Amino acid sequence: MQTRYSERLDEFNSVLDNKGKVNEFLNKYPEVEIAEVLQEYDNKVILDCFEIMDPERQGEVFSEMDMTRKLDFFKQLSKKRFSSIFEYMYSDSRADFFQHLTQQEQAALLPFLNKQTAEDVLTLSAYPPDTAGGIMSTDFTVLNENLSCRYAIENMRSAGDSKDFIYYVYIVDENMILKGFLSLKKIIQSDPDTLLKDIYVDEFIFSYVDEDREEVAGKVEKYDLVALPVLNSHGQLLGVVYHDDVIEVIRKEHTEDMEKFMGIVPGDEILNYNQTSVGGHFKKRVVWLAALAVLGLISGIIIHSFEEALTVLIILAMYIPMVADTGGNAGSQAATVVIRALALKQLAVADWLKIVWKEARIAFLLALVLGVIAYGKVLWLSWNTALPPEHNLYFLAFGISLALSLQVITSTVVGACLPLIVKKFGGDPAVAASPAITTTVDITGLLIYFGIAMLLFF
Amino acid sequence: MQTRYSERLDEFNSVLDNKGKVNEFLNKYPEVEIAEVLQEYDNKVILDCFEIMDPERQGEVFSEMDMTRKLDFFKQLSKKRFSSIFEYMYSDSRADFFQHLTQQEQAALLPFLNKQTAEDVLTLSAYPPDTAGGIMSTDFTVLNENLSCRYAIENMRSAGDSKDFIYYVYIVDENMILKGFLSLKKIIQSDPDTLLKDIYVDEFIFSYVDEDREEVAGKVEKYDLVALPVLNSHGQLLGVVYHDDVIEVIRKEHTEDMEKFMGIVPGDEILNYNQTSVGGHFKKRVVWLAALAVLGLISGIIIHSFEEALTVLIILAMYIPMVADTGGNAGSQAATVVIRALALKQLAVADWLKIVWKEARIAFLLALVLGVIAYGKVLWLSWNTALPPEHNLYFLAFGISLALSLQVITSTVVGACLPLIVKKFGGDPAVAASPAITTTVDITGLLIYFGIAMLLFF
Repeated sequence: MQTRYSERLDEFNSVLDNKGKVNEFLNKYPEVEIAEVLQEYDNKVILDCFEIMDPERQGEVFSEMDMTRKLDFFKQLSKKRFSSIFEYMYSDSRADFFQHLTQQEQAALLPFLNKQTAEDVLTLSAYPPDTAGGIMSTDFTVLNENLSCRYAIENMRSAGDSKDFIYYVYIVDENMILKGFLSLKKIIQSDPDTLLKDIYVDEFIFSYVDEDREEVAGKVEKYDLVALPVLNSHGQLLGVVYHDDVIEVIRKEHTEDMEKFMGIVPGDEILNYNQTSVGGHFKKRVVWLAALAVLGLISGIIIHSFEEALTVLIILAMYIPMVADTGGNAGSQAATVVIRALALKQLAVADWLKIVWKEARIAFLLALVLGVIAYGKVLWLSWNTALPPEHNLYFLAFGISLALSLQVITSTVVGACLPLIVKKFGGDPAVAASPAITTTVDITGLLIYFGIAMLLFF
Repeated sequence: MQTRYSERLDEFNSVLDNKGKVNEFLNKYPEVEIAEVLQEYDNKVILDCFEIMDPERQGEVFSEMDMTRKLDFFKQLSKKRFSSIFEYMYSDSRADFFQHLTQQEQAALLPFLNKQTAEDVLTLSAYPPDTAGGIMSTDFTVLNENLSCRYAIENMRSAGDSKDFIYYVYIVDENMILKGFLSLKKIIQSDPDTLLKDIYVDEFIFSYVDEDREEVAGKVEKYDLVALPVLNSHGQLLGVVYHDDVIEVIRKEHTEDMEKFMGIVPGDEILNYNQTSVGGHFKKRVVWLAALAVLGLISGIIIHSFEEALTVLIILAMYIPMVADTGGNAGSQAATVVIRALALKQLAVADWLKIVWKEARIAFLLALVLGVIAYGKVLWLSWNTALPPEHNLYFLAFGISLALSLQVITSTVVGACLPLIVKKFGGDPAVAASPAITTTVDITGLLIYFGIAMLLFF
């Protein structure tokens, strides 16, 4: 049953000297848990354990280990011994691992692989990781439509523990062109003499091999699929994307979104925080920060051009941060909502007018509330501030909170529009997020603020 | 094959008058697509279409429709007719729909349901939506261990198109206590006379019914499961969470994270942007904005207590926004990275010292780059600014950029620590995100800024 990781580690520790019990341990838990425990030990222990597992399980457990641990283990093993583990890895993690080897290491390993494995690995590694080809697996079963259900069942029986025969059988013609699929259940429910061609389902959802992995994930999600066939432009079946790969894609995209959102340059894969060096973290963050600092020049120029006004009414300078912050927050909220709604396909760029109108009304309500708070804040904070005789605090507070309210409306609308504009021009809307919004609406905020100030106070 | 939504709509429109062709259309596409097309039409058309579908398909198509459309259709139909659709809905979406009815509507519907359906619905609706119970389905098959494989296969044959018999058969004792499971493949591969008790897998991953849905999703993801059994504290099998429900949970959690992240009060479910009223959007956003505005009082007080210094050196006032913005951006980045690493379980709260040390080093590099940019900015922007005779621009620029550098370091460390602190006290780290960070580091930024200014310039 379910034991905690630390308990399993203790259990393994306690049986380590007893080969029979180690064997029992290695067979009792799911592959991923065995991998978790083994990778705490040195390569010698891992290898000893592998020696008493059957080859399938070696490949499956190795598939589940951390990439760094995999690479380390690989380096210490003879290529010949390693090739037998490699053969039995899951095809998608095998290709992923292969891509992490240096060219020399790849070249050293290839001669020890059987022809089919070598071909499979080379083909799969050739697809970009953010496409259907990059996440698909080649572990699947194809049958010809002229075979019978009896044959299909026999085939399944003889497949044993093979990874290939899982949920569906794919029906292809002699050129590997996909014609349809059959669930195991349907095969079992049919008379054994029925030919597959009489029962297979010829309406199916598929992806093209170069389709974006997010599209692929969207299809699996929409149609509640366990497996999605991947075709090339001729309609030939190249691979299958399974539900678990899709969950991984969604997690990756989530991380990528968050990173873009906060002005961090996203990577191709989820990097482990601990395994990324200080320099690596620095590089992912400095680009946006520096770009925004340069963009901030515009705000600086605006502030400086009203230097004189600020010298006369120093109180104006003191509320610039308040207006800027509130605008940034309101704008980021609006951007978040629109980016999510775009991602969930609740909105399209073509709806922009409707979105702007809705956001403007929401912003109006927000502006009322925040304007009143700002009015109170100015009165309270500046109650004892010395003002030039021709100015009075109530009117100044009114002007400042009016500017803040207008800024809330402007930045909400800008925040909602920026992701739409980025998407319109083919970019990822998540880029138009928090830091970009903050810096953009700083500019509108300053213009509104000084505009109102010049109009009312000078 | 794959046609676009608009094409399917056109196709349906063109066959609408031909009952035979409508029937063909309704059987050709996946349920979710039929639901998408039908919900564009009025209830009369939907009902006409339902009349020519078999009951199973009616329930499945209805399950896939939008909640608002479902409720509308329900209101216009006799309860008796509706009950026959209701019986065949997927058990999890059925419970979800039932929860959306008013108490009166629920009471009006219940008498028309058969006893089993009524019980199922009432039980499932009782579980909180963010637990395993709230997302599980009761569509699954249980068998007793003393049955044979032959019996299991016969059972599957007679189940027809039923939703219950999908990937696994669960083995329970007479008290519904889960003992293990069997895949369809394993049953087929075994000799028909083998008893299930001799072949079932008794090591299995499960969730308790009150377990958080995020934990459930984590298990399905970690172990690459298609279905996860849900037990009560006695070990009795109550339901099964399927892979597609998990994808939905991950999407919801993603949206919730993003919302918390940007200071939006998250809801229990993903609300459609269009279906949420202006007032609803307003309510979700105003809470944080108003709270931050009030929190901003502290910044206001700090600025005011240095009013005299600002009056003498107006140039100081002009660079407050630059320092505040840069600090906010750097802090938000650090918070994002830490929140994601926590979510992906790459980091734990106990690692805080390691994290602070790493972030401090990253921040030092960022501070160098941004400090140099700031120095250049001040020189360029303020080149013509009139200064009191005892001050010189180079030294002022040095002080301002020094303050900015220290602020980058401080806010990066604060940004990394806030999520850890929130998590330590049992909160969701995503709350400690962008707006909260910005407002917090505004305070540290002002203290550093005026501290350096008083030290160097006065």
